[in-house]
Amino acid sequence: MDERVHPEVRRVAEDIDTMEVRGAATIADAVARALRTQAEESDATDPETFRAELRAAARALHETRPTAVSLPNALRYVLRGMSSTTVEGLQRDVVQSSEEFCQRLDRAQTDLGKVGANRLRDGDVIMTHCHSTDALACVEAAVEQGKHIEAIVKETRPRNQGHITAEELADMGVPVTLIVDSAARRYLNDVDHVLVGADAVAADGSVINKIGTSGLAVNARDRGTPIMVASQTLKLHPGTLTGHTVDIEMRDTEEIIDESRREEIGSPKVVNPAFDVTPPRYVDAIVTERGQFPPESIVTLMRELFGEGTSEPWAEP
Amino acid sequence: MDERVHPEVRRVAEDIDTMEVRGAATIADAVARALRTQAEESDATDPETFRAELRAAARALHETRPTAVSLPNALRYVLRGMSSTTVEGLQRDVVQSSEEFCQRLDRAQTDLGKVGANRLRDGDVIMTHCHSTDALACVEAAVEQGKHIEAIVKETRPRNQGHITAEELADMGVPVTLIVDSAARRYLNDVDHVLVGADAVAADGSVINKIGTSGLAVNARDRGTPIMVASQTLKLHPGTLTGHTVDIEMRDTEEIIDESRREEIGSPKVVNPAFDVTPPRYVDAIVTERGQFPPESIVTLMRELFGEGTSEPWAEP
Amino acid sequence: MDERVHPEVRRVAEDIDTMEVRGAATIADAVARALRTQAEESDATDPETFRAELRAAARALHETRPTAVSLPNALRYVLRGMSSTTVEGLQRDVVQSSEEFCQRLDRAQTDLGKVGANRLRDGDVIMTHCHSTDALACVEAAVEQGKHIEAIVKETRPRNQGHITAEELADMGVPVTLIVDSAARRYLNDVDHVLVGADAVAADGSVINKIGTSGLAVNARDRGTPIMVASQTLKLHPGTLTGHTVDIEMRDTEEIIDESRREEIGSPKVVNPAFDVTPPRYVDAIVTERGQFPPESIVTLMRELFGEGTSEPWAEP
Amino acid sequence: MDERVHPEVRRVAEDIDTMEVRGAATIADAVARALRTQAEESDATDPETFRAELRAAARALHETRPTAVSLPNALRYVLRGMSSTTVEGLQRDVVQSSEEFCQRLDRAQTDLGKVGANRLRDGDVIMTHCHSTDALACVEAAVEQGKHIEAIVKETRPRNQGHITAEELADMGVPVTLIVDSAARRYLNDVDHVLVGADAVAADGSVINKIGTSGLAVNARDRGTPIMVASQTLKLHPGTLTGHTVDIEMRDTEEIIDESRREEIGSPKVVNPAFDVTPPRYVDAIVTERGQFPPESIVTLMRELFGEGTSEPWAEP
Amino acid sequence: MDERVHPEVRRVAEDIDTMEVRGAATIADAVARALRTQAEESDATDPETFRAELRAAARALHETRPTAVSLPNALRYVLRGMSSTTVEGLQRDVVQSSEEFCQRLDRAQTDLGKVGANRLRDGDVIMTHCHSTDALACVEAAVEQGKHIEAIVKETRPRNQGHITAEELADMGVPVTLIVDSAARRYLNDVDHVLVGADAVAADGSVINKIGTSGLAVNARDRGTPIMVASQTLKLHPGTLTGHTVDIEMRDTEEIIDESRREEIGSPKVVNPAFDVTPPRYVDAIVTERGQFPPESIVTLMRELFGEGTSEPWAEP
Amino acid sequence: MDERVHPEVRRVAEDIDTMEVRGAATIADAVARALRTQAEESDATDPETFRAELRAAARALHETRPTAVSLPNALRYVLRGMSSTTVEGLQRDVVQSSEEFCQRLDRAQTDLGKVGANRLRDGDVIMTHCHSTDALACVEAAVEQGKHIEAIVKETRPRNQGHITAEELADMGVPVTLIVDSAARRYLNDVDHVLVGADAVAADGSVINKIGTSGLAVNARDRGTPIMVASQTLKLHPGTLTGHTVDIEMRDTEEIIDESRREEIGSPKVVNPAFDVTPPRYVDAIVTERGQFPPESIVTLMRELFGEGTSEPWAEP
Repeated sequence: MDERVHPEVRRVAEDIDTMEVRGAATIADAVARALRTQAEESDATDPETFRAELRAAARALHETRPTAVSLPNALRYVLRGMSSTTVEGLQRDVVQSSEEFCQRLDRAQTDLGKVGANRLRDGDVIMTHCHSTDALACVEAAVEQGKHIEAIVKETRPRNQGHITAEELADMGVPVTLIVDSAARRYLNDVDHVLVGADAVAADGSVINKIGTSGLAVNARDRGTPIMVASQTLKLHPGTLTGHTVDIEMRDTEEIIDESRREEIGSPKVVNPAFDVTPPRYVDAIVTERGQFPPESIVTLMRELFGEGTSEPWAEP
Repeated sequence: MDERVHPEVRRVAEDIDTMEVRGAATIADAVARALRTQAEESDATDPETFRAELRAAARALHETRPTAVSLPNALRYVLRGMSSTTVEGLQRDVVQSSEEFCQRLDRAQTDLGKVGANRLRDGDVIMTHCHSTDALACVEAAVEQGKHIEAIVKETRPRNQGHITAEELADMGVPVTLIVDSAARRYLNDVDHVLVGADAVAADGSVINKIGTSGLAVNARDRGTPIMVASQTLKLHPGTLTGHTVDIEMRDTEEIIDESRREEIGSPKVVNPAFDVTPPRYVDAIVTERGQFPPESIVTLMRELFGEGTSEPWAEP
Repeated sequence: MDERVHPEVRRVAEDIDTMEVRGAATIADAVARALRTQAEESDATDPETFRAELRAAARALHETRPTAVSLPNALRYVLRGMSSTTVEGLQRDVVQSSEEFCQRLDRAQTDLGKVGANRLRDGDVIMTHCHSTDALACVEAAVEQGKHIEAIVKETRPRNQGHITAEELADMGVPVTLIVDSAARRYLNDVDHVLVGADAVAADGSVINKIGTSGLAVNARDRGTPIMVASQTLKLHPGTLTGHTVDIEMRDTEEIIDESRREEIGSPKVVNPAFDVTPPRYVDAIVTERGQFPPESIVTLMRELFGEGTSEPWAEP
Repeated sequence: MDERVHPEVRRVAEDIDTMEVRGAATIADAVARALRTQAEESDATDPETFRAELRAAARALHETRPTAVSLPNALRYVLRGMSSTTVEGLQRDVVQSSEEFCQRLDRAQTDLGKVGANRLRDGDVIMTHCHSTDALACVEAAVEQGKHIEAIVKETRPRNQGHITAEELADMGVPVTLIVDSAARRYLNDVDHVLVGADAVAADGSVINKIGTSGLAVNARDRGTPIMVASQTLKLHPGTLTGHTVDIEMRDTEEIIDESRREEIGSPKVVNPAFDVTPPRYVDAIVTERGQFPPESIVTLMRELFGEGTSEPWAEP
Repeated sequence: MDERVHPEVRRVAEDIDTMEVRGAATIADAVARALRTQAEESDATDPETFRAELRAAARALHETRPTAVSLPNALRYVLRGMSSTTVEGLQRDVVQSSEEFCQRLDRAQTDLGKVGANRLRDGDVIMTHCHSTDALACVEAAVEQGKHIEAIVKETRPRNQGHITAEELADMGVPVTLIVDSAARRYLNDVDHVLVGADAVAADGSVINKIGTSGLAVNARDRGTPIMVASQTLKLHPGTLTGHTVDIEMRDTEEIIDESRREEIGSPKVVNPAFDVTPPRYVDAIVTERGQFPPESIVTLMRELFGEGTSEPWAEP
Repeated sequence: MDERVHPEVRRVAEDIDTMEVRGAATIADAVARALRTQAEESDATDPETFRAELRAAARALHETRPTAVSLPNALRYVLRGMSSTTVEGLQRDVVQSSEEFCQRLDRAQTDLGKVGANRLRDGDVIMTHCHSTDALACVEAAVEQGKHIEAIVKETRPRNQGHITAEELADMGVPVTLIVDSAARRYLNDVDHVLVGADAVAADGSVINKIGTSGLAVNARDRGTPIMVASQTLKLHPGTLTGHTVDIEMRDTEEIIDESRREEIGSPKVVNPAFDVTPPRYVDAIVTERGQFPPESIVTLMRELFGEGTSEPWAEP
């Protein structure tokens, strides 16, 4: 690793690499703080050296999990804050944008929840897919606003995260109806909003989320049911500004069928993609902690947060 | 039970009632033969008495399972054959249409399979939902025609009938890929035909089939993938000619989640509809043993088989 | 007028011409009976002369109101019944098909009502446009079946026939909500069926009905709300079998704005078409007294009732 | 060749095989007459032998061009006419249905033209693709009805059949505007009807026509411009009743680019399909000499003309 | 009321409360000037006190009509201008942004009209719904540019604002055709642009406008007719940035039917929503005085004018 | 010409006028440099005189080809850079923004190519229309990234620019299949991306490109095939910010048919529009050198580059 990288930053990088630090928000918080440490501890005497150190630190952190969304998201946010022309100024910039990032991150879900809750009306029935704390924050805030909300919860094969969603909604006092994924269309007529989270949001307005989201969204559009995606800006994927696509993880096939049963039925090939891609034309609004956006304009928010993004700010010039 | 009903017919009615005789085709075959017995054993001396006896027998049979599709289907076919003006003529009519019905029934799946196979081209990839012997007959016939067919098989929660489909396709030598239901849209791009069966087909062209069919069909249409429904005429529902809708069975919720797990997650309500309704505009062709039809014209075939059907032919005049 | 035309037929023709006899059903009944009189009173001695007389009578009747739908509909039905090879046989044919026509006509609305009612479920909310006794017959039959039905009634400018509909529904005990025509889309989400009548139905599956029907149907399709057209076979337009289009009546502009007000606002041109044309792809089912049909297959029923229809059966050969 | 086949039939078969007899109508006429000869010249003494002879003749004719549409169309029509139970009766049947077929064929285009013309209104602008005498017959009849029609004519690469269409329309006095195929969408707004012919029509309502038809139809539907297909029943493809698909001819690539130019630009692969397939949902009406039909109900006409068609009537039982 | 609020501001608040000051533009102008007065008259000695005074004044003004769109719109614009760090600087900021706001407001409709006019071509036919001075400004500017424009004007039940539109268009020399609302679809084929105003525009791109707009927009999209919304930025609703929905006013039912007539027809319930919501996918462009925008990007303009808007700038910190 | 315009600027204007300088990029580069010269050579002593000189120079350049996209695009970019308050400062501003513009222009296609390449995956098949160096830059970059790309190339009548595309793709080692324009729909199923360039992009998200693009895009959307537009920001049309539409050039009709052939076929009118307009809802992404954008948000980039654009920055104030 580049010797300019501060030991504390190295430690954070290692913790991410070994997955001791994990979860999108936890990783983002850790790297923002690491960059701050790098800045504070820097003994660079000229701005260019300082900037180069910060880039080196960012690179070291980025290489640990190059496909995670929240990692480059946090790095870009902090580095983008550097606008001063002196080392001291730059240090202040980094400290400030790091703090700002962490503070925003800390209250992002609460803020997002309020925005999403405002879209819901008293008496609304929502349909959920998978389990998303961002989506649930919207319901929770609506309940706190005194609205009666009911939910139709898709079980979300293969891992049945719908069970967790059902349980958390029940804890909020929301009446829940559980269905298999295939029953979604039949119940869309009774639904006022489809409400899902996002694993990543791309600059072309696509939403990457748990497998099954796109098929649900197509059916919701076909029936005129609005679909709302709850997604902290942490999930906005900076790499997509330059056209990069998001890799879809293929998960263990035993989540779908165990090996012995698979052999019994003639050993079919099994494929288990974790996510799918929903084009923007099937989504009505993306709700973030910075307000709501039509998916087609999320690119504007991304440019605001990350800059034009045509090159990675930690790349050697 | 009406005393005019022959003891053998009574026995058949009882066997259907106690579900000793079950399965759409088995029931249909049994009632067609029962009407023949009623006709052959009749000692009516005038046509009207004979017709009244046959109506009484049909009513007795019909009442055992009034919501089954194949029962009225068979009764109507046989009764519709009565056109003579003498008792002997009517007896011949019933024997003949009963035989014709049973013979057609016997070879219906094979005939249907050939029609469906003709729609498939060498190298085609199909996607299946649930398990349908009619649909599989199309693949089997295509394989016998020397075509290479591959299949993407949806597992079809909650009862995983996709496993049976996978196994039977594997037995035919068809390479199978198994997916969860939610992954269907992602793989539709690789698919040349969606191929499903039907539990019932209505006069307005709607297809009643395993829950999840309509959502799949909407996605297939959205991507331009043709959807073919394989359905013997046995599944054409005569009652729908007069606007009757097909009742959707609600099945045991333990198929979806067992009781203890349900309590663990806050005791959500669970609903488990067995079927859903796919409107004709999402279906490209219904393949029967009498040829293929756009769903919008299946009503013509129904009228050919069952008459105008504005009243039940076994109703007292 | 052709001298072969019987005086009684002449009288009927005159009554239609002077609008003493009017209303689609009344006209149809009158001309069917007139043809019967012509047949019964004929003293033709050979089949060809007889047929020529009947054609002459039909022509005389047809010429009175060549754009009415029910007139050629009735004429074709009766003339199509002539298949015998003797004068006596032909007389019997005409009497029989005339009677059959009148009997069917007499109970058509009741029969149609039952078919339509079967499509409605207990608790359904319908939306209506204009006033149609065929459509109301469906609701009435549903209410008689013990179903609770509610209605959202469009006022239907410019003549507010929605008021009549509202009143008749209220008389049946159906709770009614009255809206302006422009509010339809907003309430479509609360609606299970759009239910309208028809002024004419064309062989290409198009429905000609009160202005505003097509715009409503497009919105209903966009939201996935099924649209049902209640239309006796009397409204099936034989001329459309050969591609003829249905003329749209332009009504008095004072129905829209009175002359003085029109001058006040700068004397705009005013146009007041009575009907519009809804293509079949926006209609789910046409309900007739002979069962329900997807609009795309109504041509089959028309051919059954009127023959191939490539020439008018009253034309000189 | 089967020795039961009459020498005259053999001669016709050979003429078709060597393409001395060609063109859909000419072939159809020739084979209908050939079957008549076979029937008239038969010295069979029992019905079964007679039927076997006719089947042998039909097989011999069919084998010459198994993919031509009009050939099986004519054979089925004539053979379907055989319903008598004596040799003499069967002979009469064949003669009569052969004559009927030829007569209908003879006036089919004229009759079709009138039906199509009825759909056009005075002042309409049509858009054409390729060259179709059926489509032009509609325009000609409309012009004869005194209607003013204008036409936007697509040149129809690669063979520019649009030039022929332009010329023939000009001869009728129709003002023509010629465009490249790619300009079609831009001018669809000015068009009242897209009017094309068909090379074949399938039982599932698909229209097989000159390459480019389906793309035009999708654009027409997108803009709400009705699309009318003019197609004699001769183009209805009996084999599609049983699911058979229509083979798409791949034509010489030099129609697209000459060999030397192809080499100059890097020797790309060139593909030149003659036809494409337009699904019924993009077509408003199919106009035939027997009236107009929504594409979804053309199967009913096919069954009327050819019977159920689940087996070829010339197949050995 | 907060004692820090200047008496002049109090007076303005009261005038708004008593509706002495009304109309979106008049209110906006008044509050922008009121904030200026508050700033100019302030004797605050430190920036924080100054800011708190301004917030208090804004709160006082906002509470008078919390659901009006233009009120928070103006307040946010002016408050957003405060960026200086001294009291004098802040005073200058408020004066300047207040002036800027009022100047822009003053010429907004003229500027908007030019933008909208640029989208119209010589000879275009527009269709209007309700009465909108913003929409009419576009036509007026087009006419001033020398373009010939014609208009089809929907009467717009229940209050017939279409009559005012017709009159004002006639005054501009625009030929007008008046129709009932239900006739819109029939005439959309003759229309080049649907042109309407807006009561409010939401951050998700939805347009809130006179009841009937959404149904018209769906039909326009279905026929490929572009729909243009003319809306000053005054109608952009800041609250929707955080997901708030716009309340739809329910108006007096006597606008639809008078009480005695209502009782005559069985006393139906009557509902009279003033507005409906058109999702962005049915709108082609929103024309403002700051240029045109696809509806999906209007959120960007809102953020430019009002800031991120996740909290109200007049809220106590 | 305004005497304040520098002789060198006059020369450039003349070269553009006489088409000695042509091609979008070459023109843009020339005018950016010309403005720099004007600024560097200015002997203005006050900022207002300097600004007036620059405006005069811009006007002179703009008037040479008022409909070219790249001309106002470059002028606005450079003029928009002027923010200083002294003549020296303004000179520096112009020099800097002119340089920046030229540098960006210089590497725009390369940068754009990388963005577009990122959207392509290894093994993808693209379909092209016309010839676009921007589009080809995407393929070239993808090939350089080691991806295997195949192409289906539409010949693009009337000028067959597809041949050039085919040749350049072949040079990159991309396997090419050449088709006539009408065959596009048939091969869309085999295609992963439609990839085209743009002649201009409008603020409402519309793409102006070679005639045939919009029809292709509608078909691609109908089949779910994504469509990517490669367009340097040079093609973003500033005038459209204020609603101006882009004029469509009508080209020589001999490109379509030579005069003698035209006379032979009845002298039809021939129209030959060079471009058509694709609405944003048919486009998935616009790829520029500054990243990718959904078409609905391209207006944001335009405002960033050109300012609000409600008046031309070279207009006399």
